[in-house]
Amino acid sequence: MISLDTIQQAHDRIRPHIHRTAVLTNRTINEKANASLYFKCENFQKIGAFKARGGLNAVLQVAANREGTAITTHSSGNHAQAVAFAARQVGMPAYIVMPRTAPEVKKAAVRGYGAEVIECEPTLEAREAGVRAVIERTGAVLVHPFDDDRVIAGQATSAKELIEDFGQESGFDLILAPVGGGGLLSGTALITHYLSPATRVIAGEPAGAADAILSFRSGRVEKAPFIDTIADGLMTSLSDRTLGIIRTHVTDILTVSDEEIIAAMRLIWERMKIIIEPSCAVPLAVVLKHPDQFANQKIGIILTGGNVDLGKLPF
Amino acid sequence: MISLDTIQQAHDRIRPHIHRTAVLTNRTINEKANASLYFKCENFQKIGAFKARGGLNAVLQVAANREGTAITTHSSGNHAQAVAFAARQVGMPAYIVMPRTAPEVKKAAVRGYGAEVIECEPTLEAREAGVRAVIERTGAVLVHPFDDDRVIAGQATSAKELIEDFGQESGFDLILAPVGGGGLLSGTALITHYLSPATRVIAGEPAGAADAILSFRSGRVEKAPFIDTIADGLMTSLSDRTLGIIRTHVTDILTVSDEEIIAAMRLIWERMKIIIEPSCAVPLAVVLKHPDQFANQKIGIILTGGNVDLGKLPF
Repeated sequence: MISLDTIQQAHDRIRPHIHRTAVLTNRTINEKANASLYFKCENFQKIGAFKARGGLNAVLQVAANREGTAITTHSSGNHAQAVAFAARQVGMPAYIVMPRTAPEVKKAAVRGYGAEVIECEPTLEAREAGVRAVIERTGAVLVHPFDDDRVIAGQATSAKELIEDFGQESGFDLILAPVGGGGLLSGTALITHYLSPATRVIAGEPAGAADAILSFRSGRVEKAPFIDTIADGLMTSLSDRTLGIIRTHVTDILTVSDEEIIAAMRLIWERMKIIIEPSCAVPLAVVLKHPDQFANQKIGIILTGGNVDLGKLPF
Repeated sequence: MISLDTIQQAHDRIRPHIHRTAVLTNRTINEKANASLYFKCENFQKIGAFKARGGLNAVLQVAANREGTAITTHSSGNHAQAVAFAARQVGMPAYIVMPRTAPEVKKAAVRGYGAEVIECEPTLEAREAGVRAVIERTGAVLVHPFDDDRVIAGQATSAKELIEDFGQESGFDLILAPVGGGGLLSGTALITHYLSPATRVIAGEPAGAADAILSFRSGRVEKAPFIDTIADGLMTSLSDRTLGIIRTHVTDILTVSDEEIIAAMRLIWERMKIIIEPSCAVPLAVVLKHPDQFANQKIGIILTGGNVDLGKLPF
């Protein structure tokens, strides 16, 4: 059970290591959406994504509790960098299992934080086997990307800052976040429930990775019918842990097409002059797709990260 | 003569209409440059560029002094939007002469501010003739992009904010700005002279539009030997007015190649997660090109704007 106190302690723990990221507004996008949007810019966070928060909260506790002498995880994306970064902060070795097909620039970034990259075949089985081998060899502690209360409590601190900074005088009508494995969404929903119970939390999901919406309806962790989306950070399925929180505290999950994601991404790039990942654009795409549903509301949006390959842009 | 008082009045005049833009720092780029860099983010300014400042300062005075009932200028770039935006703020009609070859998106942006776009052939002669015709027809007042004290005083307010916000406890060793027509550079050099006289001002110029460096040496307004650069905001030559200020208050002008500009631009996009124009990247390219000259210094850099065509990126 992740209590308000747990999240507050997480925030105190990670605060010296993270940025309190800016919240931006944009008049043109507000006019287009006919709503009042507050963008929490985790693209400006350490390692370029909110995942630094959860990774730090877990790794700092592993170090403080002497649970092990090394850290491991498997990830092809931002969580790999988050864990490598967090391990460096506490001076512990990190072993990151990454699919050999992951972009060289991502492997280089992980190595740049001093972690060892162990390459594996690009399947979930190979990744999990890689982590088991690391644990046997080194005794490292696994920090899962989302199926971990400490990670979820860390991710919750982004919405916590958003509510503290811009949801006090007049509360948010709703807060939107994208959903992949559900770590960010779970944390966002919990802290919103604690700090601003009248605020609804809604998730955006790519139509090309529509597992969370199925799981949300059925109450069981489902696989997506197919995976085909530009939002490469949102391909993962939920876990029982994240699904449980989401079913309790999230109002709805809405899907958007890749065309809608790219249009929203482009709008943010062109108008706000900031670089965000495709996954980031999903909540704005949801708002623009349902103008009546969101009209005249005060909406917080978590912009999750800005790690894009500039050589492979969709426009 | 543009006095400190002139610039302070300009700042008071335009303040209700502009953003006090953020100043960002980045540890990775500092490490790479072996210097302490403060980036003044005019890409977050109204219309996406510092030009909103100078355009507003001129247009607000035209309106207050009843010098005319309409505004005109010629520009293919940010100054066109700046004047259109400023005219809308005071409720005056604006007639913007633009080369017919200018991107449709830029013409649309100018029209979006309610201005009339008058297309002309893409030569300086045609642009000036177009403006003369507008003045004859409408009695509009010309707001020149840089050869105008009111515009220069407006552009000076960016460095003014930078010095006020981050140059008080320990002064900047130097401030860098790019140079095109010299409006921003003149204003930056003047306000730095007034507020922080120990701070040097250095300009960056594309090697493919190397007129200012020639003019700086000879003391006469020179043409570039050739024009071939990605930094499309910096192709203009100086005027006698801007050259005079620059010769008095600027320490040096250094050139960089397009490869160096693109590498610096990419570094800012990837590490700072913000969108800047190629012209913006020139000062950082200068710093990275001369590591010994700038080592261990506290350096302010004006990031001039973020209006790029996402369909035509150099990477």
